[in-house]
Amino acid sequence: MQQEYPSKLLDKAVAEFSKLPGIGKKTALRLVLHLLKKKKEEVTIFGSTIIEMREKIMHCQHCNNISDEPVCDICLDIQRTDSQICVVENIKDVLAIEKTQQYNGKYFVLGGLISPMDGIGPSDIEVEGLLQRIDTTKTNEVILALSATPEGDTTAFYIFRKIGNRPAEITMLARGVAIGDELEYADEITLGRSLINRIKFS
Amino acid sequence: MQQEYPSKLLDKAVAEFSKLPGIGKKTALRLVLHLLKKKKEEVTIFGSTIIEMREKIMHCQHCNNISDEPVCDICLDIQRTDSQICVVENIKDVLAIEKTQQYNGKYFVLGGLISPMDGIGPSDIEVEGLLQRIDTTKTNEVILALSATPEGDTTAFYIFRKIGNRPAEITMLARGVAIGDELEYADEITLGRSLINRIKFS
Repeated sequence: MQQEYPSKLLDKAVAEFSKLPGIGKKTALRLVLHLLKKKKEEVTIFGSTIIEMREKIMHCQHCNNISDEPVCDICLDIQRTDSQICVVENIKDVLAIEKTQQYNGKYFVLGGLISPMDGIGPSDIEVEGLLQRIDTTKTNEVILALSATPEGDTTAFYIFRKIGNRPAEITMLARGVAIGDELEYADEITLGRSLINRIKFS
Repeated sequence: MQQEYPSKLLDKAVAEFSKLPGIGKKTALRLVLHLLKKKKEEVTIFGSTIIEMREKIMHCQHCNNISDEPVCDICLDIQRTDSQICVVENIKDVLAIEKTQQYNGKYFVLGGLISPMDGIGPSDIEVEGLLQRIDTTKTNEVILALSATPEGDTTAFYIFRKIGNRPAEITMLARGVAIGDELEYADEITLGRSLINRIKFS
């Protein structure tokens, strides 16, 4: 590594920040200079909080979501039904679905989507764990709540085939015109799909 | 602090990243989830590099620039003349001027610009250190290389008055139409100033 700044310590800190996604050299330098103006104690807390998080965080044994305990709060919640499993890509999707307040079942977090372009194959996501979960609980419905992208569709189809003839209904999120969207601005594929999958007016 | 995520460790890490300038809650979560996918050792290196940087970095006793040693490499460089001091706001400006390869003197880093709006007064920047530096070295010229902003102008004027009748010439960067700019797109204040301060064609 060629030294770019008059301080090796600065150099190394900028290089570490530059490794983060979406953070280039200039932003990294800005962040490091900001931290240099902060008190030593504050910067120590910043660094050690992140180290501790990585050291201690776990994945829930039941749903594979991020958790501080071996089993997460959602899985421990007896108010929630065990008969539905909502399969999502990551914790952000769990949070998004929780926000809707329309779901009272459990989750299963895959930890990614199959994406050959990014080198992510079926073995890199937690499908085996999902199948085990379906087999060990009374699951009536598996909701595939994956992104409406080629990666999401591929993953959904892979899981659909893997579930095979297990006695659980497999559903997926409705695709269609988003609430609030004007028809003339909806893209043609979405509009076409929403026409084919039209539902009874009630 | 209200808990937002299913993990307190995650919560705290996101909160720490959110404190950085220009990083909101969403970006912070993205960065933390990225680090969660990295190996524990890599994340430990990330955190400890930043803590070490803040702990050990110094300000050069001569020029106040960031340095790993009590006196920085530029100040130690005997090839560079002591008779010129280029006064800049921060290390980024030192790097920018070094890149031009047009300057062979020393620097003095103020560590900020006077900005009453941001609560930064004359005592928050290193003017006393600059005056001491001028008094203790044979300084023929003090170049005020500050941003062409109200804060830069205020700071330049303050330093100009503080230097008073010390026997050093005080200069400032030329202001004018940037190289490569088309005249019709130059703003009127810049164009006006470049007309008043026109120089002999040679």
